[in-house]
Amino acid sequence: MFKHECGVVGIVSELKNTSYDLYFALRSLQHRGQESAGITVYDGKSMKTIKGMGLVDEVFGVKELMELKGYKGIGHVRYSTTGKSTVENAQPIFARTNIGHFALVHNGNLINYRKLRKGLEKRGAIFLTDSDSELILHLLAFSGQSDIISALKEILHKVKGAFSFIIMTPDLMLGVRDPYGFRPLVLGETEHGPILASESCAITLLKGKIVRDINPGEVVVIQNKGNINSFYFDSPTPKMCIFEYIYFARPDSYIFGQNVHEFRVKLGEQLAKEVSIDADKIIPIPDSGISASLGFSRESGIPYDRGLIRDHYTGRTFINPSPKDRSFKVRMKLNPIKSTIEGKKIILLDDSIVRGTTSKIIINLIREFNPKKVVFLSASPMIKNPCYYGIDTPSRNELIAAKKTNEEIRKYLNADELHYLSLEGLKKIAGTRCDSFCYACFNGEYPVKADYSGLSKNIKACEGKQIKLF
Amino acid sequence: MFKHECGVVGIVSELKNTSYDLYFALRSLQHRGQESAGITVYDGKSMKTIKGMGLVDEVFGVKELMELKGYKGIGHVRYSTTGKSTVENAQPIFARTNIGHFALVHNGNLINYRKLRKGLEKRGAIFLTDSDSELILHLLAFSGQSDIISALKEILHKVKGAFSFIIMTPDLMLGVRDPYGFRPLVLGETEHGPILASESCAITLLKGKIVRDINPGEVVVIQNKGNINSFYFDSPTPKMCIFEYIYFARPDSYIFGQNVHEFRVKLGEQLAKEVSIDADKIIPIPDSGISASLGFSRESGIPYDRGLIRDHYTGRTFINPSPKDRSFKVRMKLNPIKSTIEGKKIILLDDSIVRGTTSKIIINLIREFNPKKVVFLSASPMIKNPCYYGIDTPSRNELIAAKKTNEEIRKYLNADELHYLSLEGLKKIAGTRCDSFCYACFNGEYPVKADYSGLSKNIKACEGKQIKLF
Amino acid sequence: MFKHECGVVGIVSELKNTSYDLYFALRSLQHRGQESAGITVYDGKSMKTIKGMGLVDEVFGVKELMELKGYKGIGHVRYSTTGKSTVENAQPIFARTNIGHFALVHNGNLINYRKLRKGLEKRGAIFLTDSDSELILHLLAFSGQSDIISALKEILHKVKGAFSFIIMTPDLMLGVRDPYGFRPLVLGETEHGPILASESCAITLLKGKIVRDINPGEVVVIQNKGNINSFYFDSPTPKMCIFEYIYFARPDSYIFGQNVHEFRVKLGEQLAKEVSIDADKIIPIPDSGISASLGFSRESGIPYDRGLIRDHYTGRTFINPSPKDRSFKVRMKLNPIKSTIEGKKIILLDDSIVRGTTSKIIINLIREFNPKKVVFLSASPMIKNPCYYGIDTPSRNELIAAKKTNEEIRKYLNADELHYLSLEGLKKIAGTRCDSFCYACFNGEYPVKADYSGLSKNIKACEGKQIKLF
Amino acid sequence: MFKHECGVVGIVSELKNTSYDLYFALRSLQHRGQESAGITVYDGKSMKTIKGMGLVDEVFGVKELMELKGYKGIGHVRYSTTGKSTVENAQPIFARTNIGHFALVHNGNLINYRKLRKGLEKRGAIFLTDSDSELILHLLAFSGQSDIISALKEILHKVKGAFSFIIMTPDLMLGVRDPYGFRPLVLGETEHGPILASESCAITLLKGKIVRDINPGEVVVIQNKGNINSFYFDSPTPKMCIFEYIYFARPDSYIFGQNVHEFRVKLGEQLAKEVSIDADKIIPIPDSGISASLGFSRESGIPYDRGLIRDHYTGRTFINPSPKDRSFKVRMKLNPIKSTIEGKKIILLDDSIVRGTTSKIIINLIREFNPKKVVFLSASPMIKNPCYYGIDTPSRNELIAAKKTNEEIRKYLNADELHYLSLEGLKKIAGTRCDSFCYACFNGEYPVKADYSGLSKNIKACEGKQIKLF
Repeated sequence: MFKHECGVVGIVSELKNTSYDLYFALRSLQHRGQESAGITVYDGKSMKTIKGMGLVDEVFGVKELMELKGYKGIGHVRYSTTGKSTVENAQPIFARTNIGHFALVHNGNLINYRKLRKGLEKRGAIFLTDSDSELILHLLAFSGQSDIISALKEILHKVKGAFSFIIMTPDLMLGVRDPYGFRPLVLGETEHGPILASESCAITLLKGKIVRDINPGEVVVIQNKGNINSFYFDSPTPKMCIFEYIYFARPDSYIFGQNVHEFRVKLGEQLAKEVSIDADKIIPIPDSGISASLGFSRESGIPYDRGLIRDHYTGRTFINPSPKDRSFKVRMKLNPIKSTIEGKKIILLDDSIVRGTTSKIIINLIREFNPKKVVFLSASPMIKNPCYYGIDTPSRNELIAAKKTNEEIRKYLNADELHYLSLEGLKKIAGTRCDSFCYACFNGEYPVKADYSGLSKNIKACEGKQIKLF
Repeated sequence: MFKHECGVVGIVSELKNTSYDLYFALRSLQHRGQESAGITVYDGKSMKTIKGMGLVDEVFGVKELMELKGYKGIGHVRYSTTGKSTVENAQPIFARTNIGHFALVHNGNLINYRKLRKGLEKRGAIFLTDSDSELILHLLAFSGQSDIISALKEILHKVKGAFSFIIMTPDLMLGVRDPYGFRPLVLGETEHGPILASESCAITLLKGKIVRDINPGEVVVIQNKGNINSFYFDSPTPKMCIFEYIYFARPDSYIFGQNVHEFRVKLGEQLAKEVSIDADKIIPIPDSGISASLGFSRESGIPYDRGLIRDHYTGRTFINPSPKDRSFKVRMKLNPIKSTIEGKKIILLDDSIVRGTTSKIIINLIREFNPKKVVFLSASPMIKNPCYYGIDTPSRNELIAAKKTNEEIRKYLNADELHYLSLEGLKKIAGTRCDSFCYACFNGEYPVKADYSGLSKNIKACEGKQIKLF
Repeated sequence: MFKHECGVVGIVSELKNTSYDLYFALRSLQHRGQESAGITVYDGKSMKTIKGMGLVDEVFGVKELMELKGYKGIGHVRYSTTGKSTVENAQPIFARTNIGHFALVHNGNLINYRKLRKGLEKRGAIFLTDSDSELILHLLAFSGQSDIISALKEILHKVKGAFSFIIMTPDLMLGVRDPYGFRPLVLGETEHGPILASESCAITLLKGKIVRDINPGEVVVIQNKGNINSFYFDSPTPKMCIFEYIYFARPDSYIFGQNVHEFRVKLGEQLAKEVSIDADKIIPIPDSGISASLGFSRESGIPYDRGLIRDHYTGRTFINPSPKDRSFKVRMKLNPIKSTIEGKKIILLDDSIVRGTTSKIIINLIREFNPKKVVFLSASPMIKNPCYYGIDTPSRNELIAAKKTNEEIRKYLNADELHYLSLEGLKKIAGTRCDSFCYACFNGEYPVKADYSGLSKNIKACEGKQIKLF
Repeated sequence: MFKHECGVVGIVSELKNTSYDLYFALRSLQHRGQESAGITVYDGKSMKTIKGMGLVDEVFGVKELMELKGYKGIGHVRYSTTGKSTVENAQPIFARTNIGHFALVHNGNLINYRKLRKGLEKRGAIFLTDSDSELILHLLAFSGQSDIISALKEILHKVKGAFSFIIMTPDLMLGVRDPYGFRPLVLGETEHGPILASESCAITLLKGKIVRDINPGEVVVIQNKGNINSFYFDSPTPKMCIFEYIYFARPDSYIFGQNVHEFRVKLGEQLAKEVSIDADKIIPIPDSGISASLGFSRESGIPYDRGLIRDHYTGRTFINPSPKDRSFKVRMKLNPIKSTIEGKKIILLDDSIVRGTTSKIIINLIREFNPKKVVFLSASPMIKNPCYYGIDTPSRNELIAAKKTNEEIRKYLNADELHYLSLEGLKKIAGTRCDSFCYACFNGEYPVKADYSGLSKNIKACEGKQIKLF
């Protein structure tokens, strides 16, 4: 079964052609998935899909966008995982069923996928892909209902886990968010009609206004003329993913009702309140540590400086001169500034520590330039548990904080000091919304009751990934 | 619904890696489909598929063949049609069902596809592709049977039309041919195990021996160790496609028990018996008219000569200097030899006349070089009816012989004389097997009872196509 | 130093844009060179060049042709040789010199290249490429003359060897052929102006008329308005390359004043007069053996038949399943027809035997299908000497006929009989023009006096090459 | 003639293969040129070059690096300009001459290129490219000297302008910098031998140590064993390009003896001393304004914040939905953070203002989010004059500061306030080295005496370019 983070978008427009807007929206969501990209449009008669492996720009050019004629459409980017990254699993997924033609894009992870699939197979369903999305389409077709609204009401109680998805039918576009609201889904309004997107940055790029989040447990229904209704299929018990704020979303996005950069600045401020460090400067690991480092600097008074210049040309293909030396890739991407480092007591700050491998490489790289001291800060608490709700974390025994103490990790990283933000501190930033977030990766309290021991982890570390972009 | 000609292959081998053999087999079947290519292999644990748009060589390189590990596998090439040529429709198609994992490749056309799909949709099936193959997989999953053999016996009575398909399961490989045997399917034996293929040329290339045709109405069952059994799901009433002999198959192939080149030579000989022409030489339209022209020359005594040199570099992309002038593409592909033509009474021979457009262009091209006379021969009878059994002919009102008399066609083509092989002549060549062939495109007698008026034609002319290769 | 066969074209047109015509002309000359392709155009102000590695269609698309604006231009295709195949050596070559801007395309081989280069280097010339063309440009610049005509008159006595080249200046287009006329160069006239091309097929494709050959020792000068003059820089002593007729040129071309197919038919007829063979049929090695086989069949009465079907999809990249087994590539390209071969006494005919490797593989492939007898015919005499005049033959010790007797070669090839056309027979076909041809590869009588022992051979076998196309 | 900024590198190594190191060095210099990339290596016997259009990663893969065997080599990246961007002009350029085989890479611009070329053409030289590099090779060949050192001594007085180049011969590698030292050239030492590079970042990436700058007027000579000597061909009168510090070089590089980031921080500090602004925060235009903004914040006490998030996926191909609206490209690249901007008095800082077009688009983009005030700062003085020394600036009438007053520019940009760093302030930062820099783009005092009115400008704006990377 698939575990990944994804980005989704849906646009209904008074214009004849939405493919360009969908393309630009997907580009702004590119950080949520670099494995594959796809768009399905509807022109009033039929649906047309183009999808493929690669970045949005690799899949779509002018030719493709010209072919995708339609006044409404949905789009998807998917995050790269090892193994099952094939074009069959790319989205949108389109199907003809007894209750109509549907196209669907999905962000999340259904934790009872296997059980549901077994049940459907017994009833005669055949599965051509590995994706949650096909499962949802089967459930709709087997619902016994004759229209999509009734079918959704029927099946949304059956699927467990994290899901934010958009379904397009000839008549409607529907945005659905699970009762816990793990993954974001925002409603916006552009000059030409409504838009649904994983993050508000897609709305802003298209010069639209953010209307509101789709609420946990809510289905928003958009007519072809742009009229919008909604209903709740379940009572909301929000457990939104705090990691979207910490790392995943773009700093300029508003999700869960708050700006991401602002939240990260507060992470740094809170961390500065929790620790007291003797240092000459704080240097962010670019780009994911920048916002929290600014907050830390403001609160602590320790000057913020650049110490690592990120190479923007680091492409997708990496030629490693000595495969044994895994550090060279980091070396190519992050270039230390000697004059900032030499003889100085410096703090390095990153958003989080997952496996610790990259952090260790960065610290050793910094040490080549003879700092007096290297302190490492994590702007989030210790990650001790895997995520089953749509983020692609490693299994528990690869999570460094699941196995080692703070002191053991510090030694491993070769840091002079190591500090994590406390869970309490994190909750303090969340403030009154404190109970509306999922902290399972930190404290192991999984909101959805399930037997997690049996769930396989098909994943890749967050750390050091190419996607640390903002 | 899809109409196309395809090529299929299945190999069970004692070797660990069949992907190379599958690749070479597909290359030898390339003339049966240039739109997409695909291979699925099974390594004893799981199935892996690689498929894509384009020629076999565009989809598969060493990298892909190395990834496809497996001791058995199936492959497919599909013919390009307009419209629905998307990677979703590429084959093999793989599915997980309640009775196991299947991969399937298919050549043919199910004429009751829509009716069956409607029925399946009512039962909850969802369709992700347009292909007959997905339909067959759904039928198997809904059969109520618990094993593939029983399921096949259950469903093969339900599908009507032309089908030669190969199913691969973890335990078996099954070759199936419809009771009419419209499309060929040949069983062979290489040094390393059995092979199923649309045409014998794939078997010969792999240094194998042709064993026999899969019979109409027969299912051949190959065990993983190579043991072969078979059963009949219906009594054979062969109506094999005579057009496979006339045009589609490779001249070196043996299909329906006879060599294709040999059959075509007889077409020319018979034509020479039927007509009497005053001419200096006979010139084939290369390459499809060569064999019949040799036969004509032998029987008539009129010398065979080259008069049109085919340009082998004519690539897939065509740059047209004057889009209005459709003749330039023919001009680039076929280069007349002035010294052969000038002042001579020449006969041009092609395998068939479909729309007449290309034939007309060729005759006018020849006339630039001042022949004394141009006679045009068709080595097959007048094509008056579309094919519903897997060959991609145009709809009736585009078939020149459906609307015009011989004299009208002659004028249209700008020929001095025009002769077709007679249907009686064609049957004479078929000899004792005369009743075992389908002549529907000539005489409108469709072997399968159905309401053809309702069937859409999603097609492209055979004439002038890039695929006239042999 | 470079040895290769190439194709050249030059067009002066009343139309504003010649790039399309140049492109189509180059495509028709593609058989003369598949390594690189290039076009230079002049628009009245400046020259623009696009060139690259690969086939004409790989280098030029609509985008490139749109960029190449100009009312006149020259083009080039180059044959692939090992080693020095880099884009620097692609042509046209363009240079600014003291006597103006020139672009040049060249077909041939200057046997005193090294000596001339040494001399030029001593005078300060620097060489950026390996090509004869750059040398010619240097000679022009160092000529001490102030205009191109005078410079040409000055230098053409210095270069020795085979050369047919076209020079474009802002004011003129000049076609030059060496006094021996080794390589062809034809003048034609289209609706829009004059054209120079290696073979007439380029002229015919553009609906032009063949005017005449540029004569050996002649320079044809074309003004921008299309007016044509000419002068002789040396007295013609024609020694035209007989191998252009035997193998290299396209069958539909007229070169050296005669049609190529016609000449090849006569090769077969003459061979039939020289040998008497007991056989059921003659089968050509496609496509290079077809014309001569027709001639042999006509003269001998032995029926002509197809026995090897050529696979047109054999692409440029070849995946070899067992690198040790070099025969597989031949197997993929040439597919025997069992019914034609089995139990028959067959004659195989090819245009020539160079190394013998491919001929041997073909005979053994044929023997798999149990012929009663296999006779092998070469439509040209024994090739015993390398060519120094622009054809890419192997060095002497790779030429099978240089080392072995007829009987030894027959044994090597595994043929039951082996016959070559006699040199006398070949000369008989040349007829009254008998002394106007170079037969050096057969008899070692090199027309240009030089020390050939010191010339390196940078070459590749003609046999079994991809370029045997017609 | 060509005007561009480029990056060069040369490595002599005790290892057998330097191609990987050259590749990595070129990647670290990628910001200096994105048009083409090339490498020439010498293996003790011959030189081999691979070069092509595109980024380093587009030209070089593992295959290319494997082909480039050699213990020493040179590499080049070139900046994209309009018009003459063809592969002929890519470097290294390789030539055979009377004094040996040379490969050369060059960064700079020879202002007497035309005059020198005319002179060389009169002596018989032909020019195959537009590049300064070919000119230098011709000069060497015509020098009348018999060895490279003597030849260099002879010719380096003749070339005027900016040049930092590296020549590789079978015996030597030579690094040359013009007497003014316009362009940087640094000598380093890695574990395996010496290295020459445009910027120190290439040395640091390869874990080498910076030894020193090649001095203005100096030639450094590296033997194959790594021994290093040097001589001066002219007395140094340093006029180093101050714009390398302001914008062009990488922040982590040390050039002209100082760290670039450090210099830029001082630009911001000095600017803060010169102006007094009422503002809530300073926001850099990423990435080129970051370092100076940090300096400004430190000196002024105005908080530094992120307000524009740079999209790292902005690829090379840009699909513009409404070509008239040129602002969309900026919108895709720079994403404003509403919460940072709304209701705030903000300062935007960029390294410089060239045409003003992009600055204006950014300010209007910011204004969509309702700031209370927008102040725009340029961290360099007003650019009023084009550069003739190797940086690709627009012609004078496109430079906004050449035509408009500060107040006119402020209005054009739609800023509430606009401030430039003063030239005096810039010189103050340069400190004691104040007279060693060229400020011609600011004050028009061109160090090299020449008639600049006649020099054409073949250029593109610096502003808004893709290459503002750091």
